[in-house]
Amino acid sequence: MPLIARRMSRLGTENAFKLGDDIQRCVDRGMDIIRFNLGAPDFRSAPHLNRIAGAALDAGRSGYCDPAGILPFRQAITDHVRNTRGVEVAPDRVVVTPGAKPPIGYTLQTYVDEGDEVIYPSPGFPIYESWVRFVGAVPVPLPLSEDRDFAFTADDLAALITDRTKLIILCSPSNPTGGVLSRDDLAGIAELVRERCRPDVRVYSDEIYEQILFDGLEHESIVSHPGMPERTVLASGHSKGFAMTGWRLGWAVLPTGEEAAIFKRININIMSCVPPFLQEAGAAAYEDPASAVEVRRMVGAFERRRNRIVPALNRIPGVRCRTPKGAFYVFPDVSGLCERLGVYDACERIHKVAPSRATPAGMLQMFLLYRYGVATMDRASFGRIGAEGQDFLRLSIANGMEDIRRGVERIEEAAEDASGFAEFVQNEDGRALFG
Amino acid sequence: MPLIARRMSRLGTENAFKLGDDIQRCVDRGMDIIRFNLGAPDFRSAPHLNRIAGAALDAGRSGYCDPAGILPFRQAITDHVRNTRGVEVAPDRVVVTPGAKPPIGYTLQTYVDEGDEVIYPSPGFPIYESWVRFVGAVPVPLPLSEDRDFAFTADDLAALITDRTKLIILCSPSNPTGGVLSRDDLAGIAELVRERCRPDVRVYSDEIYEQILFDGLEHESIVSHPGMPERTVLASGHSKGFAMTGWRLGWAVLPTGEEAAIFKRININIMSCVPPFLQEAGAAAYEDPASAVEVRRMVGAFERRRNRIVPALNRIPGVRCRTPKGAFYVFPDVSGLCERLGVYDACERIHKVAPSRATPAGMLQMFLLYRYGVATMDRASFGRIGAEGQDFLRLSIANGMEDIRRGVERIEEAAEDASGFAEFVQNEDGRALFG
Repeated sequence: MPLIARRMSRLGTENAFKLGDDIQRCVDRGMDIIRFNLGAPDFRSAPHLNRIAGAALDAGRSGYCDPAGILPFRQAITDHVRNTRGVEVAPDRVVVTPGAKPPIGYTLQTYVDEGDEVIYPSPGFPIYESWVRFVGAVPVPLPLSEDRDFAFTADDLAALITDRTKLIILCSPSNPTGGVLSRDDLAGIAELVRERCRPDVRVYSDEIYEQILFDGLEHESIVSHPGMPERTVLASGHSKGFAMTGWRLGWAVLPTGEEAAIFKRININIMSCVPPFLQEAGAAAYEDPASAVEVRRMVGAFERRRNRIVPALNRIPGVRCRTPKGAFYVFPDVSGLCERLGVYDACERIHKVAPSRATPAGMLQMFLLYRYGVATMDRASFGRIGAEGQDFLRLSIANGMEDIRRGVERIEEAAEDASGFAEFVQNEDGRALFG
Repeated sequence: MPLIARRMSRLGTENAFKLGDDIQRCVDRGMDIIRFNLGAPDFRSAPHLNRIAGAALDAGRSGYCDPAGILPFRQAITDHVRNTRGVEVAPDRVVVTPGAKPPIGYTLQTYVDEGDEVIYPSPGFPIYESWVRFVGAVPVPLPLSEDRDFAFTADDLAALITDRTKLIILCSPSNPTGGVLSRDDLAGIAELVRERCRPDVRVYSDEIYEQILFDGLEHESIVSHPGMPERTVLASGHSKGFAMTGWRLGWAVLPTGEEAAIFKRININIMSCVPPFLQEAGAAAYEDPASAVEVRRMVGAFERRRNRIVPALNRIPGVRCRTPKGAFYVFPDVSGLCERLGVYDACERIHKVAPSRATPAGMLQMFLLYRYGVATMDRASFGRIGAEGQDFLRLSIANGMEDIRRGVERIEEAAEDASGFAEFVQNEDGRALFG
């Protein structure tokens, strides 16, 4: 018997957490790092919500609670879903989870047998692909293309649906692209699913960025379309919109109470429940008007930063950046930059010598971090399958204006430093990173 | 394709959470319930720890943190392990989890392939058996017997070890029995494992009740014995000893940093991390002497209650109760009571008519709840495999003295009410419960 079970070789990871080691190495060398890699708002959770959690603790609500979530929080969630999606949901269809991430794995485990096909956006949140592979399903990436602002239509999806399709994952607003599906896009997708898929096919709609939209856009959800509440696992939470990533507060709305009972059972088998004193603050986040004020303030800041960074990036030779409509990321095409710096040639040389996971965007990412102190995420961090030939970086705008200015300036300098890149690849760092 | 994936039929549950529905039904009928079912201390988390969590939130530590846990908490855990087990552990072998329950599933997923054998105590925490079955392993229950105070020796274990054994689960002090393994028991078990098991066999040592010991006993751990730190996943946390069940603060110490990295990766795939502001309080729980004072106060209360309830139960005809050495449960044999009340006959009649999950102890449990307002847990709630013919109830002493007195009085009354039991089984409640 091997020490580690075979299944574990299929479990992926999230490079956003792994990059921390590289950043620490640079910090230890005395470098000052601009953190364009972060997937969390640079805002704190709101003081009025912190106070509610503290008061609940003081009042002794420090024990176990309902593994599905405390009823007042589940009721606040159903109110929120009604107000934002126009859909009536009973609290027994809601399960509270530690963040909006657990429902991804729960959905794959609950609905998808080995050999079933799962369609998911690529580039997309890497944990989708990780769980698809972990449960032994067949990954079917849905390519999002830059020339359509990383949205897609029913026609794109139709080409991928087969008799073996069991689950379709949507994410709008999207991480990492900032792409947003319109009401019309979603209407077409809903129609397609109703017509082409059996009733036991599920849609997983990751709406964790629901509050972060620009240009006056309103959030649109697949569950607002006919036939979809009974086929959709809707997941969202407090991490992004309320700047509460460390609280681990999220939720899923299931098509039926029976399906919600399965998610509750998974909670029972993993961590029993989410801290009740945190859930009380979670309810207030939806109910207290002070929260909406905080959200607007933060989204306004993100929009101003977006308006600054996109034109600035587009002025850098070899960088081409679309204007995201939501979330807090920009996702520029850096193939021109890779060309200018000789990244393609270097990558090819590495692959000739030995098998390697090095990609051009990944090599550029490390050059920017180790030589120019700019941390970004590369394309392959958002799904590896079908990512070949796509050279993008994700830059988070969860950074103050001054850091954005300095970070872009550094990338501009780096864009002129082909000799620096050649030296980086050949020296100790490059050899350690790319083998 | 079925709606629900096949694997979900193998995932069990914890009846402690399910019983809540029955209790609620009784409360709705106006009954007053004595809650001997609870698996959580009837104490609150300590004010000085509540304050630390609140202050960390106020200071803005509300964002993501290291998925393995913040370093100061992991360092406090390594100090605690050194002080209590005499073992030196580096912080990179520690992974913080939301409670001490997640490491159970993580261990099964990480080490156990389909078809491998897993030895686990029975009666034991039901989530062991649930995960063993979920990963497709072969469950090998290790029977704990009343006449040895629910401890066991190396000889008992030796009879179960085969070439297919991959994991051995220990739990001391034990839920649900209150049994405790002595230093000598553990020395024998360690010797057996060293001699009979390959180095890739792992021991999972669930020590969540480590602080709750009576009669001046000190906690003993398998990791204190030669050869065991490198084979043992040691799991514990704050739920029981510090009365912080709702906080979901737990941890595992792994044999190597590489194995800890796998647990960290599972955290990343499920919930990213544990709230950092709660972990700060978790570190203080080990470091602030005020915590030890609170623990002693609570354990003293549990010991006084144990000293009251055990003789009181033994005075009830048909009940035989050993004196637990730790945890906060008593686990009386109620076979005499089942006999007196005609439970065996009723159970047999039910099974003649149709397949049923009804067990004698389970029927007694429901009679006590629905007719006498006393909530307990039955034997089958702690592992079903090999539980046939064992008629026990678990009563939690996480209740004040007055409730203990009233609860025992009610059981005394029930013990005289054979006609009430006969009526209960035949009426609406009984039919709904036992089919």
